[in-house]
Amino acid sequence: RINKYLQAISSILTTYSTCLSPCSFCQLLKALTPEENTHCQNGLFFQDGQRRVDYVLTYPVKKPGGGRSSRQSVQLLAENAVACSLRRGPHNGGEDLRHHQSLPMADLEGGALNGHEDHKAFRREEFEGKLRDMGLELEKEEVTKIPGVGFVKIHAPWNVLCREAEFMKLKMPTKKVYEVKQSSGIVEKISSLVSKVLEPLHPQVEEHQPKNIKHLSHTFSREKQHFSVQTCAILKKIWKCITSLLGSGVYTAAYPLHDVSSIHLLYEEWANYSVFYKYQPIGLVRKYFGEKIGLYFAWLGLYTQMLIPASVVGVIVFLYGCATVDDNIPSMEICHPKNNITMCPLCDRVCSYWKLSTACGTARASHLFDNPTTVFFSIFMALWAAMFMEHWKRRQMRLNYEWDLTGFEEEEDHPRAEYEFKVMQKSLRKDKKSHHKVSTLTCRDRLPAYMANIVMMLLMIGVTFAIVFGVILYRISTKAALHMSSSSITRNHVQLTVKTTAAIINLVVILILDEVYGAVARWLTVLEIPKTDKSFEERLIFKTFILKFFNAFTPIIYIAFFRGRLVTSHLMLFCFRSCAHGGCLMELCIQLSITMLGKQLIQNNLFEIGIPKLKKLIRFIRSKQGAFQEEERQKKLQRYETDHFLEPFAGLTPEYMEMIIQFGFVTLFVASFPLAPLFALLNNIIEIRLDAKKFVTELRRPVAARAKDIGIWYNILKGVAKVAVIINAFVISFTSDFIPRMVYQYTYSPDGSMHGFVNHTLSYFNVSHFQEGKETLDPLHLGYPVEICRYKDYREPPWSATPYEISKEFWTVLAVRLAFVIVFQNIVMLMSDIVDWLIPDIPKDISLQIHKEKILLVDHFMKEEQRKIHILESRVSTAHTLPNLCSIC
Amino acid sequence: RINKYLQAISSILTTYSTCLSPCSFCQLLKALTPEENTHCQNGLFFQDGQRRVDYVLTYPVKKPGGGRSSRQSVQLLAENAVACSLRRGPHNGGEDLRHHQSLPMADLEGGALNGHEDHKAFRREEFEGKLRDMGLELEKEEVTKIPGVGFVKIHAPWNVLCREAEFMKLKMPTKKVYEVKQSSGIVEKISSLVSKVLEPLHPQVEEHQPKNIKHLSHTFSREKQHFSVQTCAILKKIWKCITSLLGSGVYTAAYPLHDVSSIHLLYEEWANYSVFYKYQPIGLVRKYFGEKIGLYFAWLGLYTQMLIPASVVGVIVFLYGCATVDDNIPSMEICHPKNNITMCPLCDRVCSYWKLSTACGTARASHLFDNPTTVFFSIFMALWAAMFMEHWKRRQMRLNYEWDLTGFEEEEDHPRAEYEFKVMQKSLRKDKKSHHKVSTLTCRDRLPAYMANIVMMLLMIGVTFAIVFGVILYRISTKAALHMSSSSITRNHVQLTVKTTAAIINLVVILILDEVYGAVARWLTVLEIPKTDKSFEERLIFKTFILKFFNAFTPIIYIAFFRGRLVTSHLMLFCFRSCAHGGCLMELCIQLSITMLGKQLIQNNLFEIGIPKLKKLIRFIRSKQGAFQEEERQKKLQRYETDHFLEPFAGLTPEYMEMIIQFGFVTLFVASFPLAPLFALLNNIIEIRLDAKKFVTELRRPVAARAKDIGIWYNILKGVAKVAVIINAFVISFTSDFIPRMVYQYTYSPDGSMHGFVNHTLSYFNVSHFQEGKETLDPLHLGYPVEICRYKDYREPPWSATPYEISKEFWTVLAVRLAFVIVFQNIVMLMSDIVDWLIPDIPKDISLQIHKEKILLVDHFMKEEQRKIHILESRVSTAHTLPNLCSIC
Repeated sequence: RINKYLQAISSILTTYSTCLSPCSFCQLLKALTPEENTHCQNGLFFQDGQRRVDYVLTYPVKKPGGGRSSRQSVQLLAENAVACSLRRGPHNGGEDLRHHQSLPMADLEGGALNGHEDHKAFRREEFEGKLRDMGLELEKEEVTKIPGVGFVKIHAPWNVLCREAEFMKLKMPTKKVYEVKQSSGIVEKISSLVSKVLEPLHPQVEEHQPKNIKHLSHTFSREKQHFSVQTCAILKKIWKCITSLLGSGVYTAAYPLHDVSSIHLLYEEWANYSVFYKYQPIGLVRKYFGEKIGLYFAWLGLYTQMLIPASVVGVIVFLYGCATVDDNIPSMEICHPKNNITMCPLCDRVCSYWKLSTACGTARASHLFDNPTTVFFSIFMALWAAMFMEHWKRRQMRLNYEWDLTGFEEEEDHPRAEYEFKVMQKSLRKDKKSHHKVSTLTCRDRLPAYMANIVMMLLMIGVTFAIVFGVILYRISTKAALHMSSSSITRNHVQLTVKTTAAIINLVVILILDEVYGAVARWLTVLEIPKTDKSFEERLIFKTFILKFFNAFTPIIYIAFFRGRLVTSHLMLFCFRSCAHGGCLMELCIQLSITMLGKQLIQNNLFEIGIPKLKKLIRFIRSKQGAFQEEERQKKLQRYETDHFLEPFAGLTPEYMEMIIQFGFVTLFVASFPLAPLFALLNNIIEIRLDAKKFVTELRRPVAARAKDIGIWYNILKGVAKVAVIINAFVISFTSDFIPRMVYQYTYSPDGSMHGFVNHTLSYFNVSHFQEGKETLDPLHLGYPVEICRYKDYREPPWSATPYEISKEFWTVLAVRLAFVIVFQNIVMLMSDIVDWLIPDIPKDISLQIHKEKILLVDHFMKEEQRKIHILESRVSTAHTLPNLCSIC
Repeated sequence: RINKYLQAISSILTTYSTCLSPCSFCQLLKALTPEENTHCQNGLFFQDGQRRVDYVLTYPVKKPGGGRSSRQSVQLLAENAVACSLRRGPHNGGEDLRHHQSLPMADLEGGALNGHEDHKAFRREEFEGKLRDMGLELEKEEVTKIPGVGFVKIHAPWNVLCREAEFMKLKMPTKKVYEVKQSSGIVEKISSLVSKVLEPLHPQVEEHQPKNIKHLSHTFSREKQHFSVQTCAILKKIWKCITSLLGSGVYTAAYPLHDVSSIHLLYEEWANYSVFYKYQPIGLVRKYFGEKIGLYFAWLGLYTQMLIPASVVGVIVFLYGCATVDDNIPSMEICHPKNNITMCPLCDRVCSYWKLSTACGTARASHLFDNPTTVFFSIFMALWAAMFMEHWKRRQMRLNYEWDLTGFEEEEDHPRAEYEFKVMQKSLRKDKKSHHKVSTLTCRDRLPAYMANIVMMLLMIGVTFAIVFGVILYRISTKAALHMSSSSITRNHVQLTVKTTAAIINLVVILILDEVYGAVARWLTVLEIPKTDKSFEERLIFKTFILKFFNAFTPIIYIAFFRGRLVTSHLMLFCFRSCAHGGCLMELCIQLSITMLGKQLIQNNLFEIGIPKLKKLIRFIRSKQGAFQEEERQKKLQRYETDHFLEPFAGLTPEYMEMIIQFGFVTLFVASFPLAPLFALLNNIIEIRLDAKKFVTELRRPVAARAKDIGIWYNILKGVAKVAVIINAFVISFTSDFIPRMVYQYTYSPDGSMHGFVNHTLSYFNVSHFQEGKETLDPLHLGYPVEICRYKDYREPPWSATPYEISKEFWTVLAVRLAFVIVFQNIVMLMSDIVDWLIPDIPKDISLQIHKEKILLVDHFMKEEQRKIHILESRVSTAHTLPNLCSIC
């Protein structure tokens, strides 16, 4: 048993990435081909210039800054738990845990325990000794050009690699090659034409194989595929062990080296703004960074591609608005000088009466976004979202096939160290009371954490609401103050100033809270102690998403649905009901564009480019305090040293999150802002190359991780698409003037045209009915005394039997609005379902090829095993081997 | 190649069922154990009394009735296509098809071709010869007690069975046994208590293994699992061959024999009304009939089980209505003699004024179904449906695990004979023009069929609508006629008579059309020529479902949503708006209960019991024309002869369809008929045993088919559950008086109570405003002249400025109704999604056990293969075997 364990541990450092991705294994093999030696750079090889550096560990040589001790003691405990669980067999439960738990302590006491540094050095010695025992070759370098940092360079020889490849269930291409048949006739001609047209859009990456030939792939050693479960489990445990060593400061960093030639190609054909119009070389990305990152870029690519039709349609809708703005009867009526209606003041006391014609500009502008095509665009975008989801499913399936992941099953994760530590604590506590084995945390153990989660989440959402309310107060007070200002220029620009500054304040708050919420979500997830890494990631993503979603969309939802609708009494301030003519859609549009563009520009430029550069600089400056001259060092810096200056890879969550929030902007309120897809498209074209640059030049080479799909993100996307349908239904029917216009045209209009619509939407108010203290301070502002003013609402006139009561028109329009919501929601949902049902999840050619491959594979092995069958057949005919197999029947 | 082919074909007849179900294989093995010999019956064994009859083929001995020749020529062609495709290799496409196509013809011409009968006999000889060649033992019996029928009894010896078991990817229990751990502590105690309480509900079937021990299962021969793809494909082709032989009349029937001892046990513990309260012995059912039928009964069982809570809640809702009927203010007001309102006539001319108090009974009755608890019941039922779907997913997963289907993948079906025939025809036609290979039917080929489909479907749905319209006309005319009747008793019962007879007419029409539509759907699907059997089945089910669904629910939807709302002009006939007080809910309820109960009773009793009995009788009488005396023959009939008198198994579609339509009744309109779940429950308790009886005693033993899930039915169920949410929302808000009551109570009521509600819902009509020719013939019917009468609508009174216009109240109520629909639909959908998300698809214990089993299996084989690894390791270290494997990296 010990022997097997050592065997397994020996290979971890070179092959944990192999375990996760078959291609990083291939990279390692490829790195040994002779033509690569010409590219040789300093620091890529051991001192002898022969053995390649596959992986690097770093550790502090001199005393680092103190203050780590209190944190370390906890982590040491957790680490011991891991060490123990490695030592015991895979499945003999919590008992051994308690039994072995004191062993490492004994080691420590017996060894050299004079200070943390010595202890760390001892642990390093121990670990490196183990690695050497198992065939890995190590080279230590303490006196490097970066003072205070020691490097352990690791090289994995051939035989270790090959042994490990067997342990994995790696699909390897066999020698057998088969032709992927193309469909015949016209279809073929068209597709070849299309591919010829698209030729310049493809990246210039030499493919090693013609496109219509595929190597038949199969698991490396078919005989041993059952091992993978256990082997990978062990490898993962050891990887956790390294994580633990990193956490306790025994090592400071662990990373594989960047591959210079691959990096160069990636830089040329991928991480470069000059190739922005090309497809991404996804195969190459996946080979270098692994499937997980490959899938992210494939997803981002597809999303960007899908945004093209959406933005084209969006621009057409916008242009239609531009073209018809002069034919729009309501805005013509508002702007017409003859139709000069006196409007009621928009706020108490400080505001005064105003002419409707001053709202002319806004009315014309709002027509750009609020015209009949908007409805069709919303439906289009809902279907677009459904199509996008379907296309992604198909693309994913295709990639799975091309990357030979079709048989790959994600293994169940092993418990995290924190979880095991907690379970151990609990079992120690329980042990005194009863003799039950404790192997899991129950809901009761987690109750406090759950409670904290709920309370904190509600609190954070409450903070978001409070800030929205704060911005409302800011608007009201600023508006009042500006209205009182003596300068007429100031007064004229009140509306615009207030709206814009409020939107900017909102934006800044959103950006700040985004960072805060990210930290809060992580903290809350740590509190929960999820069992596995996967569950940790999912819970974290879910919480972060909820918080960031509320953060980004609460102000917008407020403007879309609640602004101007909160106050119903007719005698209270008109201030709240201040959406200009053309509904609140214009305002929603301003808010949306500022939030979206601002978020994209600031988060992209400042956070994604600026902060990593800053961090790199800081790390650089800190190490500059050493003896070497900057220029000199830069030249002589070894590869493993330059990589050390790079930022470690922190996961794909922020990248995905940013895109999902953007997807929200594109789909949720698209009815009010048809240009959103265009802005998203422009952003994403840059985003792809930006992210690519970051991965290629700013980050240490990440651990290649294997994945079949984008996981929880798909569900979140689906949820957003669902919510989008209902929100768009409400935006069209409640925020835009679409329904009132329709109702007027088809029921109230005397001649079936829109003439008189503006007059119809305005109610009458007798100024003598103002509540005391609410009347305007400047009643003669317009130059003449006002008796009756108008306001935008459906209410009875002062001379009716029930003055200022909600009128029949209001209820009619409301009923039609609600009916529209029902019809829109159900039709769009039905159409989405139909799209979902019509487009098969697996592309037809792929499913045919998978089937074909299966048959070919069977053929292949059938020939090999023909002989064995005959032997078995003769044995079976004796008829005595079967009964025990069927004993339960 | 020929050798391999013969080898494979040899085994088909004995093991095609093995291919489809591992356990029918086990049955065969089990049948050979000595203790079974005591149960020996006539005809279960060959003449020697040793070899068991595993399978029976029958063929006509004398000349059957003519008229088969025209049909046969087509089928012969199709059959030849199959024969050819068997002869060629699995994947060399259509060319060989054309090449070989003339071969069978040549055989025929060379052989004895004097008449169809001789040809058939020749083909039989050929086929049986092949079977014998491959090790099967045959016994022919032409002179049986049933004149005109010859039997071929087939016995499969041990070695054939064992050879075949290897070819299949059959999971067989290994000797290794592991304990399924029970959770500890209180949970364990409770669960043991529960299982003790439920003990009498379990069927008394001896289980061969203790409950908490499971045998570790694995594919029969691990080394050869890749064969299964190809082998099963060949076996299925041959099974198609038999189907084709059956179709062309070479054989008349093919069936395995019933197993007397199993049948006895099943009859005792399953197909018996006296055990109606017990769980079904699903394991036993699956062993005897295969997974597909097992899954149907498991599904039916779960559905019935889930109906228990639904009917309990439904009964409570109904009882609440009964208890509060005397406290219901609106019905009290209607019944109160003082509040005697004069109502307008309900139809033109012949009807007269009437007193509202005559509607007292209906108003009281409608309260039983239309009270505030109905809303909660609708929400409950929507969640119930979601829970049901989730529970079924879990149950299915559990069954998959228990039946060792977790690794089983459904193979892609091979093309149907009709499809291949059509493709061949097309390729022959095309051959003259171009040299492209034709291997599929394109959309263009299918266009006529698709068009026919669409047209026929629309036509059929049109017929349904026409019939509903016809019933409406019947109602109007009958009502008028009855009103004119002189007898006052007749007149008093007009409402009830008309409603009930209309509902009965509807029911009869539904029952007749159900049969017609079934036939139409099949015909349309045959026209489409679907490629595979699975696709054929799915298309057929889909079409049948659409037609039957429309058929069953169109009249109900008419009554729920359109009745009384089609006429908007106030001066037209009031006849359409004749729903009595309490909304149309009462009427909907009558219609629903008559349709549902009638459909269940008639379809169950008449169609499911009566018709099979009748058919059996006819077949019996027809063969009675022979020489033997009835009594004598009954006694001496051999097992294979009695089975021949049974009805062949025709698929599960009708059973599922009936249940899905019932599920529709239970969920779609549950808001109007809370007792529906109870009736469904009562029906299903009988239905389970009825179906069981049918399978055990009325049908020939079906071919055991393997299946992992219930296929398209799950999607249909999901669709019905989705539609149910929106329909219930509309029923509550539009059909019931719930919303008007709420609106009245919270906005119009002077004291916040329901007093005055009835008056509020009635508008005024001045009788002098009657259109000419529409006024009643008997204005003094009530004994006094009427000036103002009332009708149920929200319209302005005659004395308002806009008499008989729709009033503000109408729009208010409409807006609230629509808002309710939106809120209800979205909340219920959200809650369903949450239920879906909270309940994991795989039960936790099952996922744990699957994981455990995996690890144990690895352990098991690891020990076995330890030796092989070492050999391979030494070989690998030479490092020269790898490069070609990684050549594409």
